[in-house]
Formats: sequence, C-alpha cells, structure tokens
Amino acid sequence: MTRQIDFQTDPSQYRHWRVEYDGPVANLYMDVDENGGLFEGYQLKLNSYDLGVDIELADVVQRMRFEHPQVKVVIMRSGKPGVFCAGANIRMLGKAAHGHKVNFCKFTNETRNTFEAAEADSGQKYIAAVRGACAGGGYELALACNHIMLTNDSTSSVALPEVPLLAVLPGTGGLTRVTDKRKVRRDRADIFCSIEEGVKGQRAVDWRLVDEIVPNSKFDDVVLQRAGEFAAASHKADVAEGIKLTPLNRTIGEDGSLTYSTLEAQVDRKGGKVTITLHGPDSDAPADMDAFFAMGDQAYMLRLARELDDAILHLRLNEMELGLWVIRSQGDPEKFAAHEALLMSNADHWLANEVLKYWKRILKRLDVTSRSLVALVEHGSCFTGILAEILFAVDRSYMMEGEFEGDNRRIATVTLSDANFGPMPMGNDLTRLQTRFLGEPESVGLAQARMGEALDAGEADDLGLVTTILDDIDWEDEIRIFLEERASFSPDAMTGMEANLRFAGPETMETRIFGRLTAWQNWIFIRPNAVGEDGALQRYGTGVRGDFNKERV
Amino acid sequence: MTRQIDFQTDPSQYRHWRVEYDGPVANLYMDVDENGGLFEGYQLKLNSYDLGVDIELADVVQRMRFEHPQVKVVIMRSGKPGVFCAGANIRMLGKAAHGHKVNFCKFTNETRNTFEAAEADSGQKYIAAVRGACAGGGYELALACNHIMLTNDSTSSVALPEVPLLAVLPGTGGLTRVTDKRKVRRDRADIFCSIEEGVKGQRAVDWRLVDEIVPNSKFDDVVLQRAGEFAAASHKADVAEGIKLTPLNRTIGEDGSLTYSTLEAQVDRKGGKVTITLHGPDSDAPADMDAFFAMGDQAYMLRLARELDDAILHLRLNEMELGLWVIRSQGDPEKFAAHEALLMSNADHWLANEVLKYWKRILKRLDVTSRSLVALVEHGSCFTGILAEILFAVDRSYMMEGEFEGDNRRIATVTLSDANFGPMPMGNDLTRLQTRFLGEPESVGLAQARMGEALDAGEADDLGLVTTILDDIDWEDEIRIFLEERASFSPDAMTGMEANLRFAGPETMETRIFGRLTAWQNWIFIRPNAVGEDGALQRYGTGVRGDFNKERV
Repeated sequence: MTRQIDFQTDPSQYRHWRVEYDGPVANLYMDVDENGGLFEGYQLKLNSYDLGVDIELADVVQRMRFEHPQVKVVIMRSGKPGVFCAGANIRMLGKAAHGHKVNFCKFTNETRNTFEAAEADSGQKYIAAVRGACAGGGYELALACNHIMLTNDSTSSVALPEVPLLAVLPGTGGLTRVTDKRKVRRDRADIFCSIEEGVKGQRAVDWRLVDEIVPNSKFDDVVLQRAGEFAAASHKADVAEGIKLTPLNRTIGEDGSLTYSTLEAQVDRKGGKVTITLHGPDSDAPADMDAFFAMGDQAYMLRLARELDDAILHLRLNEMELGLWVIRSQGDPEKFAAHEALLMSNADHWLANEVLKYWKRILKRLDVTSRSLVALVEHGSCFTGILAEILFAVDRSYMMEGEFEGDNRRIATVTLSDANFGPMPMGNDLTRLQTRFLGEPESVGLAQARMGEALDAGEADDLGLVTTILDDIDWEDEIRIFLEERASFSPDAMTGMEANLRFAGPETMETRIFGRLTAWQNWIFIRPNAVGEDGALQRYGTGVRGDFNKERV
Repeated sequence: MTRQIDFQTDPSQYRHWRVEYDGPVANLYMDVDENGGLFEGYQLKLNSYDLGVDIELADVVQRMRFEHPQVKVVIMRSGKPGVFCAGANIRMLGKAAHGHKVNFCKFTNETRNTFEAAEADSGQKYIAAVRGACAGGGYELALACNHIMLTNDSTSSVALPEVPLLAVLPGTGGLTRVTDKRKVRRDRADIFCSIEEGVKGQRAVDWRLVDEIVPNSKFDDVVLQRAGEFAAASHKADVAEGIKLTPLNRTIGEDGSLTYSTLEAQVDRKGGKVTITLHGPDSDAPADMDAFFAMGDQAYMLRLARELDDAILHLRLNEMELGLWVIRSQGDPEKFAAHEALLMSNADHWLANEVLKYWKRILKRLDVTSRSLVALVEHGSCFTGILAEILFAVDRSYMMEGEFEGDNRRIATVTLSDANFGPMPMGNDLTRLQTRFLGEPESVGLAQARMGEALDAGEADDLGLVTTILDDIDWEDEIRIFLEERASFSPDAMTGMEANLRFAGPETMETRIFGRLTAWQNWIFIRPNAVGEDGALQRYGTGVRGDFNKERV
C-alpha cells in the first residue's frame, strides 16, 4: 500500500456516498462500491469501508457546513438492503502495514469527531437511521451521531464484534463512546463487546446503545418525523446560500515537496524532515463578511486553512518517514491580524463561524499528529493569533533574537489575539495556553494583557510563549544539532512521548480516544494474536479461529 | 525468568534498603546489593533496581504505616556515593519477557503511588533527598515523593534519559508526573525527556523538576531541617506504637493452588482460570479498637486484606496464563458486616484508618489487574460492604436466584454498607458505584437507600448491582459457557477492552498512568526499535546506538 493517497475529492467523484438535500434535512446514503477500494486486493462488501470511503465521508461533512449551511439535520442511512455498515474492511486491515492501520484509524476518528462538532459548533445534528446489521466500525459511525434510531425487526442489531471475531478493539472511538458518551454500564458494555451477534430491540434501548427502536413498517416515517422535529427545534440560524469549495491549487514536486497558494512543504528525505512554510496574506482583508462571502473559498483565511489541512493529511499518510515537521511562517503580521479580526469580530456570521471552527479542527489535527513538531520563529515571520497558536501546538519552538547579519527581514515577533484565549480549544477543552501554563495559570493572564503587541524574542521568552530564543551566533548550529538529534531518536519512543506530553490536564472523550484507546489498539495491532499468521485478523473468514498465546500481561 | 516470585519479605531479609527511625522521621536508604538480583544474568549496579528491589520497597512503605505509625516524614536517600538511583536495570529489562516487563512496571507504579497515598491517607510525607545522578526510574522514585531536594553540585542532576538512551518511555509514571503533578511546561518537558544528561542546579527549580536546590556542604543539614519542619507542621496524630506484620500463612499446592487462612485460589490450568474463594470471619468482631489492636495482624479484616493482596500479586506475576479470575465468597454476611462496622465507625482510629486505606489500595490493585474478572454470588456467599465492592470491580458478576436443588446454603444476597459510598474510591476518584452508574446517577441514591439490607437476586438485579441473575436451571450451563468463551478470546484484546471499559468518567494522574502511559509503553515494549536485536534496549551499553526503522505511525 504505497500509492499516493489524495484527500481531495468532491461529489462528482464519490463512489460510496450520495446526499439528497431536502431543505433543512440532508439524506446521506452510504452505498459503498465493492470494487471501489483505495488499494488492490480486497472488495468492500456489505458497506465495509477503507480510507477511500472515509475520505469521501469527511468531504461530505465538510461540504455540508460550507456549501449547505441550510442543513440542520443529517440522516445517515444505508443505501443497501439488509445492512447498515459492516465496519472497516477486514481484508484491508489484514494487509495494511501497521503505520497505515494507525493512521487510517486516526483519520476515521477525526472524521467521526466532526459529526459531533457539526452539532456543537454549527447546529447540524446527525441521526443514524439503522436498518440491518450495524457492526464494528458501522456501529462506531452510529455512535458518532447524536441520535441513533434502530428498526425493530428480527435482523437489525448493533454490535461491536471486534474482540471476539478479530482479536482487536473497536478502536474508532467505540469503546470510549460506549462508556463515556452513551454511558453504558460497564458490565453490560463487557457483554456487548464480547458477543458477535450484537444487541437488538428493546434491550438496545434499555442498555442505552440506541436512543429509540421503531417498528420496521413505520421506520422511514418516524425517521423523517424525528428529523423534522430536530430541525424545528434547532437554534441554527437560517442561511440562504453556502459557498463552493473548489479544488485546491496544489503541485507535488518530484522529490515530494508540496506547493500550494499559501504554503509550501519542502522535503528533506536524508534529514527525515519536512519544512512547512506558511505565507501571510498578500492583500488586505476583505472589507466585511459580504466581501468575504463573495470571495468564497478564495478568501485567504479559508484558503490557508484548506491548504494546511490537506498538507497535514498528505504528509501524515503519504510521508511516514518524514518524522520531523519544521513549521515556519513568513508574511505581514498586521495584515494577517486584520484578516483574522474580520472573522473574530463577526463570529456570529455563519461563514466566519465556519472558518473559525474549521481552524479549531485543523489545530486539533496538528495536536494529534504523530510527528515531532517544531516551529521556527524567524525574522519576517507571521505568527499572529491563529498562526501563533501553532507555536503552542508544537513540541518546541525556537525564535530569532536580535539582528542577524545580512538579514533584512522584519524582526521576529509573536502577536497574540483573542484567538489565543478561547475559540481554539484543544481536545482537552482547555486553550493551548491554559494547557501550557497548567503549573502557572497566572501566566495566561500575563500573556493576555499583552494581546495585540508585536512581542520580540525577549518579551516572548519572558512570557513563556516560546521554548528557546537564539541569537545570530547560535541559531544555525543549535537548530541543526537539535534537528539531527531528534531525527536520530526512535520514532516509536517519540510517538509515545509526544502523546503523553502534549495533553496535560483534564481529559475528555476526545483525548481518551486518541490517548488511551488508540494506544491500546496500537499495541494490539502489533501482537501476533491479532496480526500474526495464525492471528485472528489473518484468519478471519477462513472459518478457523485465531490461535492465541494465552499469556496475559 | 520463570522462577516463582515471592512478594512476602521483611526487614530481616532486605538486601537493598535500610531504615533508621528517628522519632517522627524515618531515614530510608537505598543501597542496592549488586549481586542481589531476583534473576540470573544481570548485576544491579549504581542502585538500579529490579522487581526484587521494589518488593522490598513496597514492604518498607507498608510497614511504615502499620508498624511505625509514629513516622510523619520519610527521607529517601541513596546509601551509595555519587548516585541516587540509576533506574530500572536495563539488562533485566532487555532479558525479560514482555509480560514480565509490563507487570514489573505495574507493580512499581503501584508502589510509587503508595508514597503519595501515604501522605494523603495517613500523613506520612516522602522527601527525596537527591545527591548524585538520579536518572530514569530513579527520578521517577523522586517524582513520587512530595518534596524533591537536589544537592547543587556539578554532578547531581535529575534526568529522564529513557527516550534518547533506550528508545522506551519513562513509564513508571515519569511522563505523567512531569506534566500532571509537577506541571512542567510541555516544551520544557520535551527537552528534559530528550537529553541524556538531565537538568541540574537552578534550572531544575525553575522548570519545577525539583522543589529546592541546596549547596552540597549544607545538604544533610537542610534535609533534616526540612524534615523537622514538615513533621512539626504535620496534622498526623501522635501514635505511640504500631502493630507487627508477621509472615503470612500460605501454602502453594503442587498444581499451583494457594491456601491462606481466609481464602483459597484453586487453579484450573486447562480452563485457563483460577477460582478465588474468600471466607467470611469465623469469630465475632473484636469488641473495640483496643481489642483489634491487641489482635494485631491476626484481626480478620487485616488478615483477609493481606492474604488477598498477596494472592493478587502472586497470581499476576507467577500465573500469567490464568487469564480468568473467578471470585467467590462464602461466609456469614452479618458477621462480616460487624467486623467492617468496627473499622468504619472508628475511622479516626489510626489502625482502623490504616486497614481501611489498605483495602482501598487492594481494590485499586484489582481494578488494574489485567485479567478477566468475574464474581459469582452463590448461596452462602458473603458479598457485604467492602467485599460487595468486589462485585463492582469485576468485569461481570453472576448471582444465584431462588432455591437450588440440594443446596442448603443461605440464599445468595448482597448487602451494601457505607463502605460502598465513599471510602473506597477508584483511581478516577469516583466510587465504583458512581462509575458504574455514570449514565444514571440516581441509581447510586437508590442503592444507598437500601444500605444494610440483605438484597436477594431480584432486588440486586433491579438495583443494577449485578450483571446477570440465574436460577437453578441455567446457572451451571450459562456460567460454563461464559467461562469457556472468555478463555477462548485473545488475551491482548481482553486486556485492551477491559482497560478501556473499567475506567469511565473523569481521569486522574493515576488513571492516566495506568491507562495512557502504560498503554503506550506496552506498545513500545514490543516494537523492534526498542526490543529487537538491533533495538536500543538490546544495544544499551555496547556503545552502538539502536538501529531504527524511521517510519512514524
């Protein structure tokens, strides 16, 4: 599985999903094309999915928010009779390399989270209308919806059969949402997760696995009725028209380097690193949100967001040996601040809200990216507001101090804005500065008091906003040594260390999915009991169960 | 590493630790015997430790609370010049099987937690007086103390060099205590965990890695002075005399079955299970705490606690293929309730407090035991109060309903007491019933209203206290089928599933250590980059670094 994976798609290319819009209700049908797998060697039977199916789904959810802001309720259904969704494709999982499995799970987890974010951030509520078998990743799709309706017939059920069938976990949030979102009693959850056939009918309601069961004959009517009720009760403002998300302008060089309109990613294979340079805006901010709307996806703040998001996903899945991401910025901080300020001061405008909430998701994507992240605040850089937030997402930041010989760029500064103090929380529901200053909460206030100021290296250092400041004499050597050293470490130890250090403080369902559930799944994904020749994943479908080493740890 | 590990020891057998008592201050010296390793093939140089060293340490901490209640401050020092502690022994880790590594880490983590519990529950504060190198597990020992003093000389430092040196994590709570207890800023933590040489002097204080640095010449004086201050400020009541913890009465049968005075553990190797039967008290409760004190460690509530604790540890480390623990009880519930009530109604008596807090620790040990746990509430059983708490710690419970043919034992009941509603919290700081009823918090109150009643199967089921009730017709078959099925599942998947389902709700430092840090470490402990032939753990000491697969996940 080494072909390049493209995260860009659009409805004209969908092979697995279709959407029918009906005023405030969107009818989303999962109808996976068996022969539309992203890679060779497996068929996507029974609405099972691979990364390609999920890339389309992520695109649906994203377009729903930007292109179809009228939508208040999304009904997720199967387009196939007798099956809702059989979950992640087992043959694909059996063949995939460990790194692909892990990144596949991460992306599907992020996509599931967008269902919940759509309601919380934009008033678009997801209903799962389940008819037929809904198993494993299929039920995890339903769990990510905020209302689950199950038809009450002899065959429709919800199930998490991963443990008994495959010797792996329901790792796309399943175990966590069962206990933390649906709050199923743990011994019932234990039973539910241990039986292949799942749970149906009244027991599924009693155990809180679904919200309601509906007689099969009335199912479609009640689903529509429920959608109508939710739409009527929605606080989401009516919006007449969305904007179009057009294809990104991206070129991939022969060496794998990426060029977009607002950023580049330059690959250094020998050094195991990629340098991502974000560019500030060329032009002034739009005069108002009408002007922003008229520019649509070409408005700088949205363009940069989409390009950065795509670059993150591309590098994560296609460039696994580039373990070190160096993030730079160049541009006019004041101009960037003006672009951001238009959104921040119009946060109640639907489109400003969508762009800001999109930035929130992108920054969270960065938080859970399993690469060593370092930011360089060089002269001429543009780390302001939302872009400054990147400094608090990375593992370390280095900032230029004082004049550098032969460097005529504007002196390196960091500027904070309202964006750093609330609207861009991490998965733990704290801001990155709150997390950073867990041991000295007063430092958040000290930083806030300096909002809007272009802080030089000394000031940023005093405020604790950067890791290390370096002058002309030390800059090059220190950073070179750090990058070389970091690239020499074990990638696994880095992954584990970063996953633990990045999320101090409280935990949420989201941090538990990425921090705990994912870690256990990573471990299981590499144990012979699951992936060995005689393991359950390999033997699935042969009629022979896995042959297990019985030792517990 | 297959020899039987014995968790019982006493000061006359210590090879690695010594304690000097000085009124309210205990001086604890780590002075590891190089040739005292638990297994062959490695030397415990530079105060490095293996499980044997930690078993003695756990014994020290435990005896401090029961035998030396006068102690208000424990000063942990090195008995060797130039080194505080070099951490877990690398050769031991390199040779040990995965399961031993994981269980070694679990036990050391539990022991570190007892330092913090000693202050929180009993007013015994631990000071780490660090002189010389304090690295890896050595610094993790210090991190578990609630005050860290570092001598300010050119060689003394604290360090977590696991990642750069060994390609594994500081997994004995290190990463978690750095961010969550010491609240070190994450980019500083990133630096700290990436450098072999560690941090010393003022920077160690500035970064919150230690609480104070002291000039070397004054170090011993200031340490004693600080201990005196803490002792003087302590709220711990003065206690004249402790009780003696005498050797347990245990026999191990040829088949591995265990017999203690209050419990047996019967091994079924073919079924992969062990049946643990807890016996209620033979005699009436002591009249008062004076009588309890006079009985010392022979008092039933303490005897049962010590025997159960030993059985848990023995089965965890020595019987890794017994993946299924079936827990039964037999005895007079009212008599047990009287024994428990003596402690509960005298919780301010130092010894009652110690026994109750010991039960809290034992139940937490059960919570993090990586075995499938099932309780059988049979006729004649004694699941009352603290013992009923076991029903909420296990993954599932089954209870006999109604008369069973030919069974003349007292009908199966469950009785709740005050012990179920506060004093025995889980690691997440909720009671097990609060965790169980996260989705229906009112059920906690409904259960509480029935305290003291001997609830039969129907009532226990209605209150949600047991998983499944079965009558005479179904009992044997249903349980046999469940046990056979459970034993057929992949042990790894069970471990991951149970670790996720057992801890719903909020997280604490403790749950993060066992849930998140441990999971990542388990994964890394099995990756070739760490444990492969060319991995860092195997190559440690050869002068050649590990050869790493550079792929990130």
